[in-house]
Amino acid sequence: MADMRLIVAGAGGRMGRTLTRVISETPGAVLVGALEAPGSELLGKDSGVLAGLPANGIPLSADLWSMSANADGILDFTVPAASIANVAIAAQRGLVHVIGTTGMSPSDDAVIRSVTDRAIVVKSGNMSLGVNLLAALVRRVAQSLDQAFDIEILEMHHKSKIDAPSGTALMLGEAAAAGRQIALAQHSARGRDGLTGARRAGDIGFASLRGGTAAGDHSVIFAGPFERITLSHHAEDRALFAQGALKAALWAHGKKPGMYSMTDVLGLSE
Amino acid sequence: MADMRLIVAGAGGRMGRTLTRVISETPGAVLVGALEAPGSELLGKDSGVLAGLPANGIPLSADLWSMSANADGILDFTVPAASIANVAIAAQRGLVHVIGTTGMSPSDDAVIRSVTDRAIVVKSGNMSLGVNLLAALVRRVAQSLDQAFDIEILEMHHKSKIDAPSGTALMLGEAAAAGRQIALAQHSARGRDGLTGARRAGDIGFASLRGGTAAGDHSVIFAGPFERITLSHHAEDRALFAQGALKAALWAHGKKPGMYSMTDVLGLSE
Amino acid sequence: MADMRLIVAGAGGRMGRTLTRVISETPGAVLVGALEAPGSELLGKDSGVLAGLPANGIPLSADLWSMSANADGILDFTVPAASIANVAIAAQRGLVHVIGTTGMSPSDDAVIRSVTDRAIVVKSGNMSLGVNLLAALVRRVAQSLDQAFDIEILEMHHKSKIDAPSGTALMLGEAAAAGRQIALAQHSARGRDGLTGARRAGDIGFASLRGGTAAGDHSVIFAGPFERITLSHHAEDRALFAQGALKAALWAHGKKPGMYSMTDVLGLSE
Amino acid sequence: MADMRLIVAGAGGRMGRTLTRVISETPGAVLVGALEAPGSELLGKDSGVLAGLPANGIPLSADLWSMSANADGILDFTVPAASIANVAIAAQRGLVHVIGTTGMSPSDDAVIRSVTDRAIVVKSGNMSLGVNLLAALVRRVAQSLDQAFDIEILEMHHKSKIDAPSGTALMLGEAAAAGRQIALAQHSARGRDGLTGARRAGDIGFASLRGGTAAGDHSVIFAGPFERITLSHHAEDRALFAQGALKAALWAHGKKPGMYSMTDVLGLSE
Repeated sequence: MADMRLIVAGAGGRMGRTLTRVISETPGAVLVGALEAPGSELLGKDSGVLAGLPANGIPLSADLWSMSANADGILDFTVPAASIANVAIAAQRGLVHVIGTTGMSPSDDAVIRSVTDRAIVVKSGNMSLGVNLLAALVRRVAQSLDQAFDIEILEMHHKSKIDAPSGTALMLGEAAAAGRQIALAQHSARGRDGLTGARRAGDIGFASLRGGTAAGDHSVIFAGPFERITLSHHAEDRALFAQGALKAALWAHGKKPGMYSMTDVLGLSE
Repeated sequence: MADMRLIVAGAGGRMGRTLTRVISETPGAVLVGALEAPGSELLGKDSGVLAGLPANGIPLSADLWSMSANADGILDFTVPAASIANVAIAAQRGLVHVIGTTGMSPSDDAVIRSVTDRAIVVKSGNMSLGVNLLAALVRRVAQSLDQAFDIEILEMHHKSKIDAPSGTALMLGEAAAAGRQIALAQHSARGRDGLTGARRAGDIGFASLRGGTAAGDHSVIFAGPFERITLSHHAEDRALFAQGALKAALWAHGKKPGMYSMTDVLGLSE
Repeated sequence: MADMRLIVAGAGGRMGRTLTRVISETPGAVLVGALEAPGSELLGKDSGVLAGLPANGIPLSADLWSMSANADGILDFTVPAASIANVAIAAQRGLVHVIGTTGMSPSDDAVIRSVTDRAIVVKSGNMSLGVNLLAALVRRVAQSLDQAFDIEILEMHHKSKIDAPSGTALMLGEAAAAGRQIALAQHSARGRDGLTGARRAGDIGFASLRGGTAAGDHSVIFAGPFERITLSHHAEDRALFAQGALKAALWAHGKKPGMYSMTDVLGLSE
Repeated sequence: MADMRLIVAGAGGRMGRTLTRVISETPGAVLVGALEAPGSELLGKDSGVLAGLPANGIPLSADLWSMSANADGILDFTVPAASIANVAIAAQRGLVHVIGTTGMSPSDDAVIRSVTDRAIVVKSGNMSLGVNLLAALVRRVAQSLDQAFDIEILEMHHKSKIDAPSGTALMLGEAAAAGRQIALAQHSARGRDGLTGARRAGDIGFASLRGGTAAGDHSVIFAGPFERITLSHHAEDRALFAQGALKAALWAHGKKPGMYSMTDVLGLSE
């Protein structure tokens, strides 16, 4: 099969540059377009040089329609508004659209779903194999253990992260809630501080640490009488998420239109 | 149902005393006998006082045959030779025999198996809910991940422990090997020291820490490219193992003769 | 030297019973009084039996004045109002008063300080050797590292704990702030949740986990560019804090009146 | 002051390429030479391109004498024989020689020491700020705590590492031994496996984990009765060690000839 021709959205950002670098190291994939927001001062710059590589002759551009004429897929870790705009074009072009953008609203999700009769979308809050596997384990353990085991979710990220808990922590919380067949929104304990009173039975607790350059650590703790089970994931480098996105794109290449998750990509569905 | 009448084997030892204490705190269970090795200087002492409780009128005795006339079960964390002797009597009396003794040889196991047409035996290297659940998870993860993920098992125990790795660590190693469909004996890396060379692909590594009064910590690490998944268990107190043994006894009370494991007791079988 | 004669305050509570047990196991110390709040339904019960020991003939009483006539010290993990009442009597009797009570206000502290011309007071938010040593290390590291290292403090306690962060976490935060020569109150980040924005340089962050029976874990993380230093303490059993209190009492026996800390007891002062 | 002109030794290797990249990102430093072993097939290649950067016009060469005519320092993470050869030339040229090479014998060290009347050498088993700070803490804690606390050292590195324990783990072990005023060689417990017997009081234990791409984790555990203190370091990226080497070079620039350590560079000497 010929190489899969890929566009990186947000190619001037930190994650976009990482995607560019990972594509250059991955057999079977080739970069054909570098998308950046209209008005960005990086438009026209060489995407290879921006990524710390030798020049690759692919300048940043805001014109997805043109660059997608000869592309097979788009890797998109940007912001909800941009991803929504991109998904419409991706659907028309019949591209694979890998979406790692977080913070989408239910109506954003509805828009994406509305085009999946033509588009091939893979969307996940976390593209790593490990986190997706962890979520499946958390669901199972939450199902096995009764409320004598308190569930706590801890995450640590770099100092620039602007929200808490992380999207991945919430995804793990949803997995725990699904295992217990409860609604997370009604059973969350977040931002503990001051006179909290004793822990409410059945709650799922969240705590967030911020500092340095940590790429992302997550732990789910099941604390029972005299014992604790802890399931953890440690990401060493954000290249991990770029590699997951690329794996998703290569997997989805040639699939039928529809909405897929990393669970599908990784074969973890039950 | 009437209370289950229980005998503690090795009632003068550290684990035996803990069992006596846990029985005294558990509704539905009552102590009726305290077994100790012939010749022990503790014979005749009150088992309650030995356990740091008020006197209970049950002195340590070496005569299992007599004390088992009016008993339903025996909790046995002793040594292989003692457990083998006990299992014969337990079978004749039709008792539930919960065996937490470690270090049994294959021929010891054969002896036990030979009486399970009459005896109700529950046997496990670790009686805690958490460790048995962990083993089930380890097996599943080892099955999901290919050899790009290296498996390492770490344990820490108190300074008096005389063998390494712990029986529980080996049990977790067996679970990992089963998930990968390999034989643990041919794929273990133990006691790393000096010029080891690079890690052999497919090996399962073991490392042991010893110190202080740690009741028992175990971690299974799946280390892949740029990410790590770690599944851990932390025991706060050896009362945990006594409670597991008692749970096993109560579960087995009234079951058909046979050989059961904690996986059966806990409903974790697949 | 004769045995030190000790009173346990709050002898009917969880920590009081632990203190009773630890005194019974410690050479050089003997229990002579068991104080409980007026009106408690436990008054008159045997303090040994309450602690899970054989009867010791020392019933719970609310009359500190009488029981302290022939005592050398009092171990007090109760509530601020009770400790304040006790300290007045302890001063008149010239007792060693070991105070592990938390949640004291500045005016409570002033009252205690006002009697230290006669009383021998040892007061600390945490009586363990390990935590006090940790605090000294945290202060030193905070002094060595500049603001390129973000300081985060994480703690986990059992599900019944009613406040967050723990007193010990705050004590560690004060040590970090002292090392940096800043005021903790102006540089704390507590209860992170929602759109927090990026981490503020120089802040000391706190996060709290609650669950199960955890006796108390604390970690201080120094997260810098591409590396993290973590200093942790793990308490296996609350007996640890009782042992620390007893060590403090024995150390203070015969000292001059004054206000001492565990740093003095442990010889960690710089 | 003009930029410090630096040579990277082993510029074709993994660490050499990282050094080249870090120099390109560091103000005040400039690459002027790229040394590689005679006979390497990489000789003549552009060192920038090898490091994943745009070409920098500095080809790999085996001739240190020529390239050092206009240099101020050399960063050397190679093998003992190469570092010994380099130190002679560095001394003649009066360069700063930063040595991160491990596995040196006592006689290698003697050779280096013999030229430090002219050379400015900074040598360390680990160039990170965090590890050197950790070693200072370990020494202090080992001094404060008596033998009731067992000392254990745990490390994890990537699967290609060929020796165990790591040089850094041994450096931490030496710090602990110095704090206790014992000789490490007589008090090491390494490679625990099988029937080890109970832990020998006063020993310093080592355990090694290998797997994946871990850049390097180290923990020193002080395990006492019912409590544990753990001092840990986590390296996220080997760029950390390159940055430390560069910091050492910039610090040493202009210093008097002599033998320095990272403790000097970081101002951690007591």
